[in-house]
Amino acid sequence: MSKLTDVPKRILIGRALRSDRLGETLLPKRIALPVFASDALSSVAYAPGEVLLVLSVAGVSAYHFSPWIALAVVVVMFTVVASYRQNVHAYPSGGGDYEVATTNLGPKSGLTVASALLVDYVLTVAVSITSGIENLGSAIPFVVEHKVPCAVAVILLLTLMNLRGVKESGSLFAIPTYVFVVGVFIMIAWGAYRALVLGDTMRAPTADFHIKAEQEGLAGFALVFLLLRAFSSGCAALTGVEAVSNGVPAFRKPKSKNAATTLTMMGALAITMLVGIIALALVTDVRMAENPGQDLLKGGVPVGPGYVQDPVITQVAEAVFGNGSFLFIVLAAATALVLFLAANTAYNGFPVLGSILAQDRYLPRQLHTRGDRLAFSNGIVLLAGAAALLVVIYGADSTRLIQLYIVGVFVSFTLSQTGMVRHWNRHLRTEKDVDKRRHMIRSRAINAFGAFLTGLVLVVVLVTKFTHGAWVALLGMCIFFATMTAIRKHYDRVAEEIAADETPSDETIRPSRVHSIVLVSKLHRPTLRALAYAKLIRSDRLEALSISVDPAETKALKDDWERRGIDIPLKILDSPYREVTRPVIDYVKSLRRESPRDVVSVYIPEYVVGHWYEHLLHNQSALRLKGRLLFTPGVMVTSVPYQLESSEAAKKRARKRAEWNAPGAVRRGPVERRPKEPSGKS
Amino acid sequence: MSKLTDVPKRILIGRALRSDRLGETLLPKRIALPVFASDALSSVAYAPGEVLLVLSVAGVSAYHFSPWIALAVVVVMFTVVASYRQNVHAYPSGGGDYEVATTNLGPKSGLTVASALLVDYVLTVAVSITSGIENLGSAIPFVVEHKVPCAVAVILLLTLMNLRGVKESGSLFAIPTYVFVVGVFIMIAWGAYRALVLGDTMRAPTADFHIKAEQEGLAGFALVFLLLRAFSSGCAALTGVEAVSNGVPAFRKPKSKNAATTLTMMGALAITMLVGIIALALVTDVRMAENPGQDLLKGGVPVGPGYVQDPVITQVAEAVFGNGSFLFIVLAAATALVLFLAANTAYNGFPVLGSILAQDRYLPRQLHTRGDRLAFSNGIVLLAGAAALLVVIYGADSTRLIQLYIVGVFVSFTLSQTGMVRHWNRHLRTEKDVDKRRHMIRSRAINAFGAFLTGLVLVVVLVTKFTHGAWVALLGMCIFFATMTAIRKHYDRVAEEIAADETPSDETIRPSRVHSIVLVSKLHRPTLRALAYAKLIRSDRLEALSISVDPAETKALKDDWERRGIDIPLKILDSPYREVTRPVIDYVKSLRRESPRDVVSVYIPEYVVGHWYEHLLHNQSALRLKGRLLFTPGVMVTSVPYQLESSEAAKKRARKRAEWNAPGAVRRGPVERRPKEPSGKS
Repeated sequence: MSKLTDVPKRILIGRALRSDRLGETLLPKRIALPVFASDALSSVAYAPGEVLLVLSVAGVSAYHFSPWIALAVVVVMFTVVASYRQNVHAYPSGGGDYEVATTNLGPKSGLTVASALLVDYVLTVAVSITSGIENLGSAIPFVVEHKVPCAVAVILLLTLMNLRGVKESGSLFAIPTYVFVVGVFIMIAWGAYRALVLGDTMRAPTADFHIKAEQEGLAGFALVFLLLRAFSSGCAALTGVEAVSNGVPAFRKPKSKNAATTLTMMGALAITMLVGIIALALVTDVRMAENPGQDLLKGGVPVGPGYVQDPVITQVAEAVFGNGSFLFIVLAAATALVLFLAANTAYNGFPVLGSILAQDRYLPRQLHTRGDRLAFSNGIVLLAGAAALLVVIYGADSTRLIQLYIVGVFVSFTLSQTGMVRHWNRHLRTEKDVDKRRHMIRSRAINAFGAFLTGLVLVVVLVTKFTHGAWVALLGMCIFFATMTAIRKHYDRVAEEIAADETPSDETIRPSRVHSIVLVSKLHRPTLRALAYAKLIRSDRLEALSISVDPAETKALKDDWERRGIDIPLKILDSPYREVTRPVIDYVKSLRRESPRDVVSVYIPEYVVGHWYEHLLHNQSALRLKGRLLFTPGVMVTSVPYQLESSEAAKKRARKRAEWNAPGAVRRGPVERRPKEPSGKS
Repeated sequence: MSKLTDVPKRILIGRALRSDRLGETLLPKRIALPVFASDALSSVAYAPGEVLLVLSVAGVSAYHFSPWIALAVVVVMFTVVASYRQNVHAYPSGGGDYEVATTNLGPKSGLTVASALLVDYVLTVAVSITSGIENLGSAIPFVVEHKVPCAVAVILLLTLMNLRGVKESGSLFAIPTYVFVVGVFIMIAWGAYRALVLGDTMRAPTADFHIKAEQEGLAGFALVFLLLRAFSSGCAALTGVEAVSNGVPAFRKPKSKNAATTLTMMGALAITMLVGIIALALVTDVRMAENPGQDLLKGGVPVGPGYVQDPVITQVAEAVFGNGSFLFIVLAAATALVLFLAANTAYNGFPVLGSILAQDRYLPRQLHTRGDRLAFSNGIVLLAGAAALLVVIYGADSTRLIQLYIVGVFVSFTLSQTGMVRHWNRHLRTEKDVDKRRHMIRSRAINAFGAFLTGLVLVVVLVTKFTHGAWVALLGMCIFFATMTAIRKHYDRVAEEIAADETPSDETIRPSRVHSIVLVSKLHRPTLRALAYAKLIRSDRLEALSISVDPAETKALKDDWERRGIDIPLKILDSPYREVTRPVIDYVKSLRRESPRDVVSVYIPEYVVGHWYEHLLHNQSALRLKGRLLFTPGVMVTSVPYQLESSEAAKKRARKRAEWNAPGAVRRGPVERRPKEPSGKS
């Protein structure tokens, strides 16, 4: 019946093409970097703007704090990268923060991390696409004038692409990411050259604006609070750093070492880009405000609600390269593309995490199966739906969405780093080798500092952002947490219920006899086949059962039965109300009452058809009967399928679907098994 | 999986209460009359108005044609009743027009009748409810000011009532119908008394209005056409007459005689009421116009688009009883109620006709089962949806809806009467008894005249109404016809494909051996039970099969297997991609390749749970595997259910659902079997 609900989907997205399995190919560092870093690197497209924007509350004079805030973000970034280098060495299996937290802090912490990451994936899609639209909008005004529909359209496009199962390749990620990185570096270098060597005065398009400070002359606690808020916003640059730790298995050998190197490269690139963009923003006098309509003044007059505030990166690009110049357009396009790729990583990461959670029975078991298209599709649709909802609710305003974003990231950072400290403590208890011990103590120190710092940032983020929207993210986490706990509880309860006793119980006592019943309506090929199969299986008693709903048909059946000389007794039950299910159930129950230790085996000839609408025309009575028989104890229900000609179509379709390959394979790598015990290598 | 789609339904409409089976009780005439006649009698509530309305096109002077038109309608009514008295004698099985047309004119005619009746049921709901709302509106202005939402709300209410399976009783129909009939008769008698004896001048609320003739001084062909259009509208009074012929089995014995008597009573009542209301309308100077806003003048000025035209019956009641008087209110309420009951009869008739069509394989077979709640529900929802759509499209304007209405009725009348003529011809060929022959010849004459007259009316209706909306009804009929033809073709093709040869073919050749496979994931009770059952059935080879998706789990399984000393060989297949379906399918196929004459029997332990959301957490892999195995030839798939504790809830639910009794039972009577040959009694 899943077919039925599948149909609209299939009409919309067509059928997946057969694609050869990926994942057998391991990623070299030069490809792994763009594959895993698009999320982290793309965040430098919005993080600098957010910092300036918050500072503007205290007026443009507060902009001089921005280098210090950038420095603080760099310190956190440095710490996080150093910490995660320890993670990838200790946990090369790709379980990421969830595995680290579960193993070292227990399942509740693990589940908290998982909830945070799931929320995070939703927000990655919402924030990245919104920001991408804003960047694209600085080159194409139409886009920014229709932000919400454009953002939703991009979400839809990515969703369809992922549902369809686009074949991924490293170069898909590599080209835009490298164009973006190289573009930003050229911009920084050229900007620095113009400013320092040529002594040009570069002016951002907003350089002539004035900012009306919302809170004039802030000082003391209020100022500190504002700076902390700006810092929190800047920490948006750190999202996506943990991606590498989830993808260690996809790296070439030595996996952990290569992953760690990639992490370092990513960190270095992100830090340089972030600092460079903030520096250029200050040099070119970019002006950003939280409420640009009211607080940006042009010639003393507010610019009004119609004003669209371009992102810092494109303002800087305009100042450095000139508006409408080739490089400006390329950079805007590459920025938007990298942000969309970052959103796409969430589409891949969400089902991967779902699969790991399913293995631990926090999510329906079928999610665990790789390439289960239905499960994958449901995950994708859930992710896209939640992201689109957020985009619509928040009017595709990246500034407002970012308030929700970083909570999840830092919950996961903090718990993961705390877990790593425990990890080293445990290993230090048994490790005798002095060299290894020194190594471990060093790692522990790094992770401890990481835990402390990210914990501190988490507190700062919660304090400064809670009322601004962080509560929404926390609520989302609670919902995920509660749902997954309930699912796990259900599975545990069932596992307990069905656990076999060590001593043979009544389940294992062999029932005494089998009474087989073949359901017959007419003597056609499916019935004859069912009868032949049932005879082949030697049960203690075999009879055919027909429900008489029409005396003429019943008589015809009896005559046919005799003429063919079928040596199975035919029992006919009357059904004055033309029901089929109830007489069969009643008969089976009466057999069970007569001899409770017998097992009743019911054979149902079934038609196999090719189209869902044909399914509506067949097997409905059989389906209902089967559904009811399942509730009758001591019964086996056997379908004897008869493949109609039209079933060929469905067969082909089923084969195609089985060969479908879920996107995200590149990032996941071929190693599928998570060892139950952490390897402990550092 | 039907459960899933059922859930919203269940939340909305709750669970059906257990109700004792009806239908065992046969209907005396005094109850049968209201049960079957509410549709026919209620149409006098709108037919007179439609006649006046059409005539008003030629100005108020054309009203003097209305008695002649009433007379023509009475003649048709008389003819139809006389004709159907023959039908109920000749076809006492309740198959109605569909059976008559199929038996005598062939399946295509039968299907045409069926399509016409299905469309007719939809329109009965739309027209009756709209008209009921208009009648109610003359007492409660709020209702008429919100016609469309009110009409849709009533449709919704009736739908929920019918989905829930309200216990029907004759008195439910009897009280409002009798109140209505008695009310109308009191009105006619009191009106006649006031006019003739007291000499009162009774004035309808619209008596002072003038009508601006849209086409002044019509004459010749144009006038005839207008009169024919008015006659066509008046024929709306005939809808519902055929209901009795569908319900013969529900009558007390002698069934046919009682049904014929009821028909006569119904015809007499309808004719008297129709004539009486038209007479009173003329006496009280009721003014109706097709476009009341423009064509009704009050003091020379159009009343404007805000004017609401009350139905003739309430205008007359107001004139006779006085506005706001008790009897006026009672009559308006009873009229509305009877119209809603008439709509309700369509809710009962639609699935009954569906069941008969399903028996002849024009509709999915499961509709044939009586009390199949799911099928019944789908029919009800389809009917209600189509009716609501029409109500919304036509703005709950009964005048516009009636244009669509009578086509279907007269298609069915004409074909049925033509069929009856053939019926008598056939019987006359063999009948020798002189008395019987005379009787038959008389009947044939009546039916022939019926066929001629209803055919003529059909032509008139088509000519005068086609562009006014009758084409919509014809389109609906074509859609039903095409769909049912396609379904029948599919069933015929399948029947041919699966027909067994007379000589034993390869289907009947006994396959050589059975290879049984029990699917195992862990050794818990469901698995142990499946193993025990599979062992009980003595197949030629038995093995357990486990798909290894996790080496640790597989090892645990192997150890457990050995420790318990299970004497069934355990085969383990590796699945590097954590798939379950593919390795099993491949293995089964390889077995079949090795020995093609063997049958593979796959045993799948299955969990039986109580809630749909639990279903999402279990059996998903089993479900998919079963779906794929069905496409593999030479395979049997056996579910060995294990009832979890939570399944008790579902068991109770299933039992309740099985005991549910479809509405419409009262009308259908207990005799369920249609004889293949008409009885020929007259």
